[in-house]
Amino acid sequence: MEFHLSDYSKIDSYLIAHLDESIAELSRLVAQPSVGAQNWGMQACAEMVGEMLQKRGFTVEILPTGGAPVVLGERKGKSDKTLMFYNHYDVQPAEPLDLWETPPFEPSQRDGKLYGRGVSDDKGHLTSRLHTIDALLAEDGELPCNVKFIVEGEEETGSMHLPKFITANKEKLAADACIWEFGGVDHREVPMQYLGLRGICYVELSIETAAIDVHSGLGGSIFANAAWRLVWALNTLKSPDEKILIPGWYEGIIPPTARDRELFAAQPDVADEYKTQFGVKGFLKGLTGGVDLQIAEVFEPTCTICGLTSGYQGLGSKTVLPARASAKVDFRIALGQTIERCLVLLRQHLDAQGFSDIEIKFMGGGPAARTDPDHPFIKLVVDSAEEIFESKMELIPMVGGSGPNYPFVHELNMPVATAGLGHPDSRAHAPNENIRIDLYLKHARHMARVLKGFAQ
Amino acid sequence: MEFHLSDYSKIDSYLIAHLDESIAELSRLVAQPSVGAQNWGMQACAEMVGEMLQKRGFTVEILPTGGAPVVLGERKGKSDKTLMFYNHYDVQPAEPLDLWETPPFEPSQRDGKLYGRGVSDDKGHLTSRLHTIDALLAEDGELPCNVKFIVEGEEETGSMHLPKFITANKEKLAADACIWEFGGVDHREVPMQYLGLRGICYVELSIETAAIDVHSGLGGSIFANAAWRLVWALNTLKSPDEKILIPGWYEGIIPPTARDRELFAAQPDVADEYKTQFGVKGFLKGLTGGVDLQIAEVFEPTCTICGLTSGYQGLGSKTVLPARASAKVDFRIALGQTIERCLVLLRQHLDAQGFSDIEIKFMGGGPAARTDPDHPFIKLVVDSAEEIFESKMELIPMVGGSGPNYPFVHELNMPVATAGLGHPDSRAHAPNENIRIDLYLKHARHMARVLKGFAQ
Repeated sequence: MEFHLSDYSKIDSYLIAHLDESIAELSRLVAQPSVGAQNWGMQACAEMVGEMLQKRGFTVEILPTGGAPVVLGERKGKSDKTLMFYNHYDVQPAEPLDLWETPPFEPSQRDGKLYGRGVSDDKGHLTSRLHTIDALLAEDGELPCNVKFIVEGEEETGSMHLPKFITANKEKLAADACIWEFGGVDHREVPMQYLGLRGICYVELSIETAAIDVHSGLGGSIFANAAWRLVWALNTLKSPDEKILIPGWYEGIIPPTARDRELFAAQPDVADEYKTQFGVKGFLKGLTGGVDLQIAEVFEPTCTICGLTSGYQGLGSKTVLPARASAKVDFRIALGQTIERCLVLLRQHLDAQGFSDIEIKFMGGGPAARTDPDHPFIKLVVDSAEEIFESKMELIPMVGGSGPNYPFVHELNMPVATAGLGHPDSRAHAPNENIRIDLYLKHARHMARVLKGFAQ
Repeated sequence: MEFHLSDYSKIDSYLIAHLDESIAELSRLVAQPSVGAQNWGMQACAEMVGEMLQKRGFTVEILPTGGAPVVLGERKGKSDKTLMFYNHYDVQPAEPLDLWETPPFEPSQRDGKLYGRGVSDDKGHLTSRLHTIDALLAEDGELPCNVKFIVEGEEETGSMHLPKFITANKEKLAADACIWEFGGVDHREVPMQYLGLRGICYVELSIETAAIDVHSGLGGSIFANAAWRLVWALNTLKSPDEKILIPGWYEGIIPPTARDRELFAAQPDVADEYKTQFGVKGFLKGLTGGVDLQIAEVFEPTCTICGLTSGYQGLGSKTVLPARASAKVDFRIALGQTIERCLVLLRQHLDAQGFSDIEIKFMGGGPAARTDPDHPFIKLVVDSAEEIFESKMELIPMVGGSGPNYPFVHELNMPVATAGLGHPDSRAHAPNENIRIDLYLKHARHMARVLKGFAQ
């Protein structure tokens, strides 16, 4: 690593000198499981985050939401301006456990990386930002501006309670700009500025056709089968050409603009990278790469089966006619679509197709939102990255993933910029999630520059 | 219970006096798990069965089959005729475990019943027949005819190796007639004579679309999803009106005869019983009851999804695009259909529908077969039941379940009669499997009469 020693030399030196301590703090945080989907360790992890903020002189509140609590931290700084960091302490389930090289909740360093569930998504982002706070306090004795942390516990399960929490706490959460929970470099080591997030409407579809499972030799010809009902119902949602078949689904969608295509055209082709990384031979809908692949990836609504479960799933065979079946279905929604309308259209469609027996359980989600690529705060975050990453930060108009940026953009009326320590093989949501420690340090250095630049 | 004390009074007295010992022996056999699908305890259970036969003076062989071993027992008797008992020592998986009131492998008596996995299917049938053997030996000092036991270990997983084993051991297995592994009374307490078994072709359909699961926010629009591919492929197999869509599937099927309809017409309607027992409101294909319901139940080919598995199936939500998916599918096949042809038709159909990526794994099965309702051996079994059950045994031309009767009927050229201790709520293959102890005793008494009657 080469460093440009400008007026940030003391802060950078501090960040380098104390890097191991920060990684140790991250490791402690990762060792505290906080799997939202399994309601495992949530309160304990929230308290640990609260203590970490308190240690840095932040006023901390751990507030109920109806689900996992939100941790709020606030510390005044020199300037009147307020920068907010949005992070989350919850993590994805670690399953399938047998594919992890080292246990998911026992963080382990090798080859310049730290492995563990949540190291990247999102605990590493939180502790690297605290590392920045430590350096600024150590060198300057104060923060350059007011800083607020909002650390929620339901990001991975759809941030069910966050929008209402934000609406109810608008004054407490007032700030001038927000740094989002994630960001990072692409496969060329170029840092990326992700300007928007696709929406999500996650549902569980389930059905019960009988009180008990039946011997399939008896029931096969005459009893309804929950697994079959589910398969037929799912089949009405999307055709093999990937078109969502729910009437009205595509209405009101705001299509990508010429500027969006222009920004993607400036990006390298991701086709080969994806093929290697995920072990796929090609893409859906005849896509081969280029702008079209990237536009499809992030702007189009999707209907993804995330899980199927019914009947006997063990070794060998069992001749049973299942009474129950369920599917977890993740609808990514585009700019202009709303959760409320999607749920109504889905119910109407299943009823019209003869599947009133399929129950829909909303599991969380929110609409899509994005920030203007030409906002001055975006320019600050982009410009201050260049010295550290030795490459211009590039603008990505939208990503395919989701998060609760809508209330930040539309309720708190803030620009939201992304910045982070991610890399293409960080395996968020998958076994062997990891961070590169060099990028962890770079992110902390970047945040020091953003905080100081923002305060001016 | 009331007993008709004819010339069987001593034997009946013995069976009553030693009933607890036989139930204790059954309990020991049930406590030895033997879950074929999970390859759990098979050898140990085979050896236990071998010891139980040896104790009664049978010459025992435990023979390899390529899968779970077959236990053969043979003991000479007074007459030259040979009666064979076909039983199996393997049991269905006990899952879902949380629905059992008492642990499946810790047999438990309450309200005149014994509960445990395999008490009815099929360990209770085996020990009740050994109880008969004990009584005959105790009272007469010898068996009335030669008796052979064939006790296999793969019945619940499709008797993969039994047909070849029978072909290879035709002389050793020669006999004049066979008592099948199951039987019992219906909801009116009337004993049933089941004359045939539908065939079965059990397959696992599976697909892998990528090397690893992908974040659904990234992959949803552009990567193939294993769960969706499976849903679409399954959807091509059967339509919601229950018609199997595989071309040629229904060709060559031998339809039910006028005699079949006549035999079913003599049966009471099962519609209400089924509704109560399984908690269903109605039946498929507009069936309401009567002969049509019974004919559909046992003569029609079926395509039953027994299990579905893909992606995340735990609590809450996980935003993942699954790389793998599989379904266990149980095709019941009718008289005239063959396994070989069904597998070819299924592969051709999936290929023609664009699903060459779906792998088919054959998990076991065999064709349908049945015995002439007017065979003298059937008459013996039927007539000898009347005194014990205080009701005429009724003839059922075919049942919907499956078993390896084909090689017994068509290779060993024997009539196969059913007789047993089952009752409508015995919950074979489901949680809380049970037997009624009164029926256990009746079956042992019935078998004593069949053995003596057969020897004459």
